Amino acid sequence: MHNILVLGGGFGGVTAARHLERLLGARDDVTITLVSRENYFVLTPLLFEACSGTLELRHCAQPIRPALRRARFVEATVEEVDVERRVVRATAAGGAMHEFPYDDLVVALGGTTNMSLIPGSAHALTFKSMADALVLRNHLIERFERADAAADPTDRRRCLTVVVIGGGLVGVELLGELTAFADEVLRYYPRIPRDDVRFHLYEAGPRILPELDAKLADVAVRVLRKRGAELRSGTPVRAIEPGRVLLADGPIDAGTVVLAAGIVPNGAALGIPVDHDARGRIAVEATMRSRSHPNVWALGDCAAITGPDGRPYPQLAQFATREAKQLARNVVAAIDGRAPMPFHFRSLGTMASLGGTRAVAQLMGVRLTGFPAWWFRRTYYLFQMPRWDRRLRMILDWTIALFFRPDVTRVDVAPLGSAATV
Amino acid sequence: MHNILVLGGGFGGVTAARHLERLLGARDDVTITLVSRENYFVLTPLLFEACSGTLELRHCAQPIRPALRRARFVEATVEEVDVERRVVRATAAGGAMHEFPYDDLVVALGGTTNMSLIPGSAHALTFKSMADALVLRNHLIERFERADAAADPTDRRRCLTVVVIGGGLVGVELLGELTAFADEVLRYYPRIPRDDVRFHLYEAGPRILPELDAKLADVAVRVLRKRGAELRSGTPVRAIEPGRVLLADGPIDAGTVVLAAGIVPNGAALGIPVDHDARGRIAVEATMRSRSHPNVWALGDCAAITGPDGRPYPQLAQFATREAKQLARNVVAAIDGRAPMPFHFRSLGTMASLGGTRAVAQLMGVRLTGFPAWWFRRTYYLFQMPRWDRRLRMILDWTIALFFRPDVTRVDVAPLGSAATV
Repeated sequence: MHNILVLGGGFGGVTAARHLERLLGARDDVTITLVSRENYFVLTPLLFEACSGTLELRHCAQPIRPALRRARFVEATVEEVDVERRVVRATAAGGAMHEFPYDDLVVALGGTTNMSLIPGSAHALTFKSMADALVLRNHLIERFERADAAADPTDRRRCLTVVVIGGGLVGVELLGELTAFADEVLRYYPRIPRDDVRFHLYEAGPRILPELDAKLADVAVRVLRKRGAELRSGTPVRAIEPGRVLLADGPIDAGTVVLAAGIVPNGAALGIPVDHDARGRIAVEATMRSRSHPNVWALGDCAAITGPDGRPYPQLAQFATREAKQLARNVVAAIDGRAPMPFHFRSLGTMASLGGTRAVAQLMGVRLTGFPAWWFRRTYYLFQMPRWDRRLRMILDWTIALFFRPDVTRVDVAPLGSAATV
Repeated sequence: MHNILVLGGGFGGVTAARHLERLLGARDDVTITLVSRENYFVLTPLLFEACSGTLELRHCAQPIRPALRRARFVEATVEEVDVERRVVRATAAGGAMHEFPYDDLVVALGGTTNMSLIPGSAHALTFKSMADALVLRNHLIERFERADAAADPTDRRRCLTVVVIGGGLVGVELLGELTAFADEVLRYYPRIPRDDVRFHLYEAGPRILPELDAKLADVAVRVLRKRGAELRSGTPVRAIEPGRVLLADGPIDAGTVVLAAGIVPNGAALGIPVDHDARGRIAVEATMRSRSHPNVWALGDCAAITGPDGRPYPQLAQFATREAKQLARNVVAAIDGRAPMPFHFRSLGTMASLGGTRAVAQLMGVRLTGFPAWWFRRTYYLFQMPRWDRRLRMILDWTIALFFRPDVTRVDVAPLGSAATV
């Protein structure tokens, strides 16, 4: 019996497991096991809308179990990969330790916000998971409530200042969604003057949205500036302190600070004793096979996969999905004694949502802006959702959101106390 | 200027504020202020469905601000009521203290789960708020995941044992929803034998569902027993320990213990220095005016309002809503020098959902069971939602739920860490 073990339940891991199922059909000489920390997979590009409430939070996730057919799913957190014994140790909820032997290991553990670039990063919110989206939403609404009740104008302005650190896709899309959200809900806060609400975005690099061509990036900046946001490139943040951000030209008091300045491989991926590159990503051949351990494979944000031009592929969902399919084919080829093929994929395009039915996109050389770009982006992600029940719910959420304003309900986050960890 | 201050954002407080707005029209000699811990109001009878995921969690809540017209809303937690100076002190998020002077005070602070009946109650989950519904949902799904991964059959059975303490409406409706949910989602857990999943309900009193007539209670018990639940009346729980429940005839190991054994007034209501009854509820006349302080009024779960027969009115949403309307009329009458009227209302009926499209109901003398009762209950609560955007979302949630199975996505609850409390 040949055991394939997939670690990680994101775009990469789930697509790989599903594709392995398809390729292996009813073959009973191979087992597939997927181990992930969460029992659902998140369509991360939709988290922005989940944060503002356009989309229900749960609707940007898909439970993993119903999406699998023959693969076994186990909810557990990877603790250690023993590449000599070919065993992965993982803890399930409640602390029970499980061991998973493997013949082929697929590492798709993803990335996490880079907290080492800016001192004091722990004082900022991050934007990577469902919990992050929920916490940011609640946080922002709480700041509006606080500002509405505040007697002192300085306190109020501080509550209403939002700083986003990082001008890449995540930072800009987040800024777009938050500015649109604020414009919509401020009518419910009669005591908050619109001008007191301030949005800042700081990018250390030379320009905003390096992922897109310069003309589209300019359009994005114009749209966001019209909503009153201040975007500055070439402006590194020196440090983050509780409630403020330090720049070269002085500090900025802010009630909300979100860090979106790049990602690093997940801790569990960093700890796997195979070769890594300088940024901690698993060093793989173009076939996605580990350079040091041929029965370990890696893809997505935790792998350094270089294209024919020698440059690494971008860390985007679009690529993770394609990598996963090729990787599944390669693993099956290796089992059957055939040669694995190098990964090669040219991006179909890049899209950035700006919130409030606006987006910019470049699609196979064509530039789209405004509503058409926004509509295309939505529809594209809709079809990335594996099953129709979720797609239907997403369509309905969006339809209703066209006719009604977003709301300001906080789904309160209660710390999981002792009672829940019996 | 006459200030009316309403404390509490549940059925009672919000209905009172809305009705005061209506009665006072454009009169500019009276202000209305509503202070509540949360900026939304929850349709508590829908929390069961939110827990199983039939309804989105956020859809059983309505933001308070858009539901008010002229009243001022402040999100703050009541700390102290100074009945001499006629001032309420409350803290907003972030710790800022605010003072609200009042001429008439309406106390609608509601109730909280009674933790003093059973030793060790802190080890149980409760079911009263949105956070409770979310925590219980996540907890239950986590137990399924854990059981699916568990190697030891004893561990597995413990994970899969659910105990509900209390056989009143809340306990029975919760048991109904949870059994139906388990039946639906277990197909995704191929390694869990259905017989290992056990549901127990213990009621200290002589019978299950004392709120309904005995025939309907029997129907409810039959429906739940068919789903494999064990319901025992006359069975007080001696104590709750982490992971188990002690009964007279021995302990029961359980991965999930939910306490639904009655409510007591909220701490903030208990602390108001006016006359209270033996159970801590504010002692009021039949007009809902405090017996000791005529400019304090109270309603709902924190007030002891007795009917013409000398018995207190039940602590149900239906009553709180009617009390609020009468109370609003009485406050306006008192301001205008007219006599307030005693509250008098006969219940229109009582309904208990049993989950999985089943319910029991007695409506103006008529008994309904099964699907018709369930449909009627849903529709009734739909129209308790103040605004159409929410109603529409609820209708769509329910429609989709008819065609698809519930899912097992946990919207993960992350403790609000230091970053969020900048």
